[in-house]
Amino acid sequence: MPRKTVQPASENEILRFLKDRYSNTGGSIIKGIGDDAAVIHPETAGEYWLVTTDMLVENVDFRREWTTPRQLGHKSISVNLSDLAAMGVRPRFFTASLALPAAVSKRWISDFFRGLTEQGEAHGAQLIGGDLSSTRDGILISVTALGESIGRRILYRSGGREGDILYVTGVLGRSAAGLGLLQNGCVRPRIRSQRLAVRSHRTPDPRCDAGMWLAQCGMVCCMMDLSDGLSVDLPRLCAASGTGAEIDAAALPVFAEAAGWDFDPEALALDGGEDFELLFAVRASKAPLFEKIYPESLPRITRIGTMIHGKGDVWIHREGKNRRRLKERGYDHFRRSPSKQGLERPYE
Amino acid sequence: MPRKTVQPASENEILRFLKDRYSNTGGSIIKGIGDDAAVIHPETAGEYWLVTTDMLVENVDFRREWTTPRQLGHKSISVNLSDLAAMGVRPRFFTASLALPAAVSKRWISDFFRGLTEQGEAHGAQLIGGDLSSTRDGILISVTALGESIGRRILYRSGGREGDILYVTGVLGRSAAGLGLLQNGCVRPRIRSQRLAVRSHRTPDPRCDAGMWLAQCGMVCCMMDLSDGLSVDLPRLCAASGTGAEIDAAALPVFAEAAGWDFDPEALALDGGEDFELLFAVRASKAPLFEKIYPESLPRITRIGTMIHGKGDVWIHREGKNRRRLKERGYDHFRRSPSKQGLERPYE
Repeated sequence: MPRKTVQPASENEILRFLKDRYSNTGGSIIKGIGDDAAVIHPETAGEYWLVTTDMLVENVDFRREWTTPRQLGHKSISVNLSDLAAMGVRPRFFTASLALPAAVSKRWISDFFRGLTEQGEAHGAQLIGGDLSSTRDGILISVTALGESIGRRILYRSGGREGDILYVTGVLGRSAAGLGLLQNGCVRPRIRSQRLAVRSHRTPDPRCDAGMWLAQCGMVCCMMDLSDGLSVDLPRLCAASGTGAEIDAAALPVFAEAAGWDFDPEALALDGGEDFELLFAVRASKAPLFEKIYPESLPRITRIGTMIHGKGDVWIHREGKNRRRLKERGYDHFRRSPSKQGLERPYE
Repeated sequence: MPRKTVQPASENEILRFLKDRYSNTGGSIIKGIGDDAAVIHPETAGEYWLVTTDMLVENVDFRREWTTPRQLGHKSISVNLSDLAAMGVRPRFFTASLALPAAVSKRWISDFFRGLTEQGEAHGAQLIGGDLSSTRDGILISVTALGESIGRRILYRSGGREGDILYVTGVLGRSAAGLGLLQNGCVRPRIRSQRLAVRSHRTPDPRCDAGMWLAQCGMVCCMMDLSDGLSVDLPRLCAASGTGAEIDAAALPVFAEAAGWDFDPEALALDGGEDFELLFAVRASKAPLFEKIYPESLPRITRIGTMIHGKGDVWIHREGKNRRRLKERGYDHFRRSPSKQGLERPYE
């Protein structure tokens, strides 16, 4: 999920504190805090189990007037499924807790759960429990999903090294374009690309099948999902792998249609959040074979750059220009620095 | 956790709707929605796995001025551990998500996590992940805990039958007495019983050890934890078991000291929430042996009544009087019906 607290700096501090202090490993914990999901291996279990959880807060993570309850249910489980996709494992179960103000109707709740369970089951995850509570105002959603490894093959953020080729699935920046349209109040549903953009934002489809294939093919060395935008997430992948990265601006699979709506497709691709695409790396020597055997039935992949020597620093290269350092704008900063793309303060 | 929504009637409707519609069983799901925790049995796992989740909302479930962050962390995991205790299984892992207003300090957060992890680890559960988000005002906490069965022995609510003897662990109504003192703003910490009462409310200690022993001893047929008060929870146990129950007012292990503070100990024992004691039943023929072998090192148990023919209806018996039907007051209704015990509208 996009990080979105009011105090971005100290949120990073909190995350670092939690990771330093509570990132248990050893015993049954294969991987604690610090990746897309926790990995546990109970003594009596054949496979690894993965646990991931996300909280959605009204007017921070979503606005009720921009989504139907069914769409919101769909999105609530999707953000968790994307974390499981990012580790390459099979979604199995989930719990969903809701805290609701008194004014929410039964119909709203039933539609929410419909979207939630339809999307869960589309990816193999079944609802097994939850909690209901009340709030004075504002809906809160907390979903926890469990995934199971396949043959104990899991992809972490930390497996990359210098020289690896970087890929992403799908298109980057489309969800942010959809959000921009909603914020500007000018969605024209008759235009297919606008429909697609808004749909990407409202009901993202996590890359579970691609994630599992990438974990099983044996050629991918690190992976994560893109929830906060490439300019925020790629440095995280690099930091975990102990590398830097250089990406090629011309290679980015941008959502070109957004240019016609007064957005900058490249900025959306770099800094827009909630694409829920996969970002991963393959050793250079294996890249040709990898590209050859990657199934056509899965979302297209694009080679966007290379891992280089560094400590989480990322550079962007443009034809005929000096490379420049990529600034971490991503979701958090968007909210605070009014931009020309009409994307400032998403969700207020 | 106590149920506490603003619309109690429709909350029951929602729960019924969810249970009817989404209570999956079959395949890997041994028990879905409807007990204290969900029970799953992945094909490759030796043991059953249990998942339970609870949400705590500021000013609904807690008040910041009545608790330290460390105590709140302690309580946040305890309510989940109690659900695992209620099934008789071993706590193993948990995730914790927090949504925070900007004004919450780093110190607050670090103290919260300290209480959370200390109490989790005291019962064998390790923090493996979570999520951070922001709110405009009010802290939200969502914890999900995972437990593992021991030899696949699990106690459900549904195993009781006519004639079974009903027991509870510990003392009932002490937590509600502590809440009452806090609400009345008259806690005298020098008085040991007041300290105990307030501690029961702030930092309840779930009965994990007793729960595991009760599941392993092979003589208990159904069990649940007391989170909403006996008058609400016992009918749930009976409904799940397809029985009624008759309890003996004189036998209730009330918190007698509360009488000196203008509370009614019996009303607290019946209707006070958050005791997090265990309620369970043993076949009448096995009760004498059971009581004999129950370990002294575990919290004391008290025989409070018998399961009888019925459909979830519960009766209370008093020496020399006709039995009367026990009204479901519990936590929810407390809030709406001002009572003489100063316990109306807890937390509002």
